[in-house]
Amino acid sequence: MKIVYGGDNITIKRSVDSGTEEQRNIVKEIIENVRVNGDSALQEYTQKFDRTEIKNFFVTEQEIEEAYSDIEQDMVEIIKEAAENIRSYHKNQLKSSWMVTKENGSILGQKVTPLDSVGVYVPGGTAAYPSSVLMNVMPAHVAGVKRIVMVSPPGENGKIPSAVLVAAHIAGVKEIYKVGGAQGVAALAYGTKTIAPVDKIVGPGNIYVALAKREVFGDVDIDMIAGPSEIAILADDTAKAKEVAADLLSQAEHDIRASAVLVTTSENLAVAVAKEVEQQLSNLPRKEIAQKSIEDFGLILVKETMEEAVETINELAPEHLEIITEDAFERIGAIRHAGAIFVGRYSSEPVGDYFAGTNHVLPTNGTARFSSPLNVEDFQKKSSVIYYSKNAFFENAEKIAAFARLEGLEAHARAIESRYK
Amino acid sequence: MKIVYGGDNITIKRSVDSGTEEQRNIVKEIIENVRVNGDSALQEYTQKFDRTEIKNFFVTEQEIEEAYSDIEQDMVEIIKEAAENIRSYHKNQLKSSWMVTKENGSILGQKVTPLDSVGVYVPGGTAAYPSSVLMNVMPAHVAGVKRIVMVSPPGENGKIPSAVLVAAHIAGVKEIYKVGGAQGVAALAYGTKTIAPVDKIVGPGNIYVALAKREVFGDVDIDMIAGPSEIAILADDTAKAKEVAADLLSQAEHDIRASAVLVTTSENLAVAVAKEVEQQLSNLPRKEIAQKSIEDFGLILVKETMEEAVETINELAPEHLEIITEDAFERIGAIRHAGAIFVGRYSSEPVGDYFAGTNHVLPTNGTARFSSPLNVEDFQKKSSVIYYSKNAFFENAEKIAAFARLEGLEAHARAIESRYK
Repeated sequence: MKIVYGGDNITIKRSVDSGTEEQRNIVKEIIENVRVNGDSALQEYTQKFDRTEIKNFFVTEQEIEEAYSDIEQDMVEIIKEAAENIRSYHKNQLKSSWMVTKENGSILGQKVTPLDSVGVYVPGGTAAYPSSVLMNVMPAHVAGVKRIVMVSPPGENGKIPSAVLVAAHIAGVKEIYKVGGAQGVAALAYGTKTIAPVDKIVGPGNIYVALAKREVFGDVDIDMIAGPSEIAILADDTAKAKEVAADLLSQAEHDIRASAVLVTTSENLAVAVAKEVEQQLSNLPRKEIAQKSIEDFGLILVKETMEEAVETINELAPEHLEIITEDAFERIGAIRHAGAIFVGRYSSEPVGDYFAGTNHVLPTNGTARFSSPLNVEDFQKKSSVIYYSKNAFFENAEKIAAFARLEGLEAHARAIESRYK
Repeated sequence: MKIVYGGDNITIKRSVDSGTEEQRNIVKEIIENVRVNGDSALQEYTQKFDRTEIKNFFVTEQEIEEAYSDIEQDMVEIIKEAAENIRSYHKNQLKSSWMVTKENGSILGQKVTPLDSVGVYVPGGTAAYPSSVLMNVMPAHVAGVKRIVMVSPPGENGKIPSAVLVAAHIAGVKEIYKVGGAQGVAALAYGTKTIAPVDKIVGPGNIYVALAKREVFGDVDIDMIAGPSEIAILADDTAKAKEVAADLLSQAEHDIRASAVLVTTSENLAVAVAKEVEQQLSNLPRKEIAQKSIEDFGLILVKETMEEAVETINELAPEHLEIITEDAFERIGAIRHAGAIFVGRYSSEPVGDYFAGTNHVLPTNGTARFSSPLNVEDFQKKSSVIYYSKNAFFENAEKIAAFARLEGLEAHARAIESRYK
């Protein structure tokens, strides 16, 4: 693993795959076809892309029961506990409507309303992660969204992976459809005879899913398009090389474009971690992926001072940040940009991926500068509430009319004056 | 104005201008040119599009002073009072960081951080609205954004309209540049020698500005792309036709694609408003615009019951909603989708455009189903904070490792186990 001493701060930018012209055209055609032909188009594409024939996209209770029988009971309990932890953390994000009143009788406020309906996309095949089901569904539940729909492509056996179905059931999803890809996104956005449309689509997917989400954005809302995973670790010589290396590799195994960066004030740690990474790589099942990721986007930066190290972290604005230093808590305040901050030796990043309760859908590729983890507010929206009493109105009517005329909007001024002229 | 009795609920969709292929290419070229040639590209485009030569884009204190001398003192006071009202309303939206602690020593929380820097785009020419400066800048201020930059195209006289400069100064903007269009957006997104880049760009603009914002989105954040303005009025026979008509026209004068809809249970009101609209139109300065808007997107819907009327409002999901009924407050609860809700006879929509303190940047074209008014949280972002104590870790380590292995992510499991194996 490459070690860089001192030097300028480095931002690691990966090319976000924005698709080819051809891919965009394919997606547009699929969406158009689904809008026109509905379910039959879904069947056609499922046959073509998923190589299976689906007559009824709706996942039945019996299919759910079968899925449970595939999963060890211990594992079911673990998923349930994780779901509970996620619910309990996200409840703290729930916003209430509020108002402020004035003695002149006027009231200003903000009404908070959950979205009517949300669609959660869950990728198929090897990328099928039950944890991702929990992370996308639970915040919508906590927000109070009444209708939560899940779509996921069936395997060649015509089924959605059992662990995904179990997680969806535990998360309380009542409406699951065996359809994926751009066609699944189109169905969620515009609806078919079987699948009623939703107001927002969330969840990860391949390039076709990402392009489809971009395409329908505006007609419905979407979540951020996630890039490859990242971890940055801020550590001093109190950190254990073995643990730091293992945490770096836990991100590297995700994707050859994932990035794993150690920023440290300790030369000894830097050297020891580099060695540990090589050793631990050697017997990883996903060695090829992790190795390529470490080669291309792995980095160890040695900084003179902890202040410089922290500034480098802010430059990186990493998706995941671990702080493994003597005074870890003291460092939080200076971190301006990070999706999730894991504090201390025992807060290994997978703790947040699966179990602690925080969301693992996080801003990637430097967007932590302006984006947030997926949260309850992504499933609520606000309406301003304005009540002007007669008194409040007459106190201010002429000022408002004057402001309108300053902007050359006479009808605005007259709307005010129509109340007394 | 067209009156429709009963009938199905109607959604009024206007084509959102997404630009031509040619326009998109022009914008891409401009952005690329600014990225490569910086200030000189800005000068070139300003010469070309704004027909004026700008040597120094930065607006000096002297220019601000000159602007003040252009504006009546009364008007300055009104703008100041409006700014204060906006600040005081938006302060209620300010979020704090929070944490929850457990007896086992673990801590979960959310750190709220303002964006480092924000760019506010202010359109030039006749569309120059000081109110829009206040509405876009004040929430960023309240959020705690340290660097707020404003860009606006100069007129042929090489100046930004005085009212805009005064509003910007009152809103506390320290950094104003005389550059607009796609080149202004490019400068904000990628920076030049004169203009340092920002993390988020907000504010309305023409199609080139909108396309440029879409183009840079991802490298920086942007606000929603606003469509033409809308008002829906929910009224019964307690409403005054003259006032309702005037309020409808106050939106219609904005844009020929603006929409103004009355939904009422009163046939008498419907007829009277239709007549009033014709009369009031006759002597409006912006008559041509308002008339076209009323013809194409104006509508009066008469409903049997208030419940049906409310459901129609939810179908419309209007940007602005006025409730002028006997029991106006009681209706708020059933309104699920509206950008801003104006309650009662004296809460005429321009009250919110200029003065009350709520934001006038609101979701248009049905996006109130999933979007919110511009607010303080648009200028803050969150970082999850996870601290697992040694106890919390060992309580859960094996479950977390098991979950990771269920998803086939061995390195995640080993990261956990590296703490004890």
